[in-house]
This record gives sequence, C-alpha cells and structure tokens, in this order.
Amino acid sequence: MLNKMLLIGLLYDFYGLLLTDKQQKCIELYYLNDLSLAEIADDFSVSRQAVYDLLRRSEQLLAEYEESLGLVKRYQWEQQQIRSVINILEELKTSTGSQDSRIDEALTLLGAILKEE
Amino acid sequence: MLNKMLLIGLLYDFYGLLLTDKQQKCIELYYLNDLSLAEIADDFSVSRQAVYDLLRRSEQLLAEYEESLGLVKRYQWEQQQIRSVINILEELKTSTGSQDSRIDEALTLLGAILKEE
Repeated sequence: MLNKMLLIGLLYDFYGLLLTDKQQKCIELYYLNDLSLAEIADDFSVSRQAVYDLLRRSEQLLAEYEESLGLVKRYQWEQQQIRSVINILEELKTSTGSQDSRIDEALTLLGAILKEE
Repeated sequence: MLNKMLLIGLLYDFYGLLLTDKQQKCIELYYLNDLSLAEIADDFSVSRQAVYDLLRRSEQLLAEYEESLGLVKRYQWEQQQIRSVINILEELKTSTGSQDSRIDEALTLLGAILKEE
C-alpha cells in the first residue's frame, strides 16, 4: 500500500493538473490527507461507491498519462544519473583534497535540479 | 515562423501523445513534413478551413498542456544547468590536465541525460 501511495503521489505530481478539480480533490483527500472513502463521500455528498469509482477513474487516468508520456519513469532514471554524478564529484573532492570552487559550483547546479524535480 | 515551428516541435515532443491520432497527423504533416493546408485537406478529404481549425485546436491543446505541466520550460532550464556542469567539468579536465577517469564517467552520465531529452 505504501508503494502504491508513493506511486500515486509521483503520478499526481506530474499529471495531477490534467485531472478535473473533483478528481484532484478526491486523490488529495484519499492519498494525501488519508481520509476514508466514507468520509470523502460525506464531504462530496455522494455515495461511497461513487467515491470509489471516481478514485479508480482518477488513478486510471494518471496511469494512462504515464503510459503515454512516461515522465515518472524518465524522472526516476534522471534522478539516478544525477545522483551518480554528484557521488563522483564528491569522491573527487575528497580523494584529491581539491578546493577547486568549480566542483562546488557543479554540485550546486546539480543539486538545484534534484531540488526542482 | 522558425521560432514557432521550433516551439511547436518541442511541445509536440512532450505532449503529442495526448492528442488524438488525427490531431497528431495534422501537426506532423504541417510542421514536420511541411505540407500546405490545401495538401493536408486533400489528404484528409476535408476542406482547407477544416484543416486550419484542426491545426489551431491542436496547437491550442499543446499550449494548454504546457500551461498546466510546464515540461518544456522545465526541460529548457534543466538542459542549461546540465550544459553548465559539462562546461565546468571539461574546463577542469583541461586546466588541471587531469586524466581522472571519474570526470569522464560523470561527463558520460550527463551526456546521456542530454541525449535522452
């Protein structure tokens, strides 16, 4: 369940704005605010089944966007590449005892990418 | 016009798969294959005006996806960050005359990101 929550969270980060307001709200209440289906149903003044359907439909849409655009997969790969470069530069600093400020500058630029993502 | 073509090309790279088959085909014929509206109209067996409308609608959708997700803007910024890091590492190699294979490894990892994008 935790893995599913993480995955939905990532998909939602990338594609959430392509969902309708109601679909967004439903994903947020269920996955981010940890409300139950019954609580959301109460909030929306609809049946528990309607919330269940809305949630499944929203998850399906997020999965379809990923199927088409593959941004989450790409993001995870890129994070890994950048972390590897950061490790290399940090090792380089340590092993050579280099005070070269350009390595720090490169680390700052790469850190900004990870932070933005 | 060249700038517009480049922009549409980038938007299409990111969001093209969210368009319908017909919208995709229309963008490709007009912007990538350089066909005229009349030629596309002939190909689709519709009026020139219908092609014009389809094209405008497709461009508008691409712009709306960018408005929501901002992937092209993000991509351009990230490319710039990575190119700056590559420049720093190449300068470092030259100025220190370093043969350290880890710099080459880092350059390969970064190069792969630029190539993938």
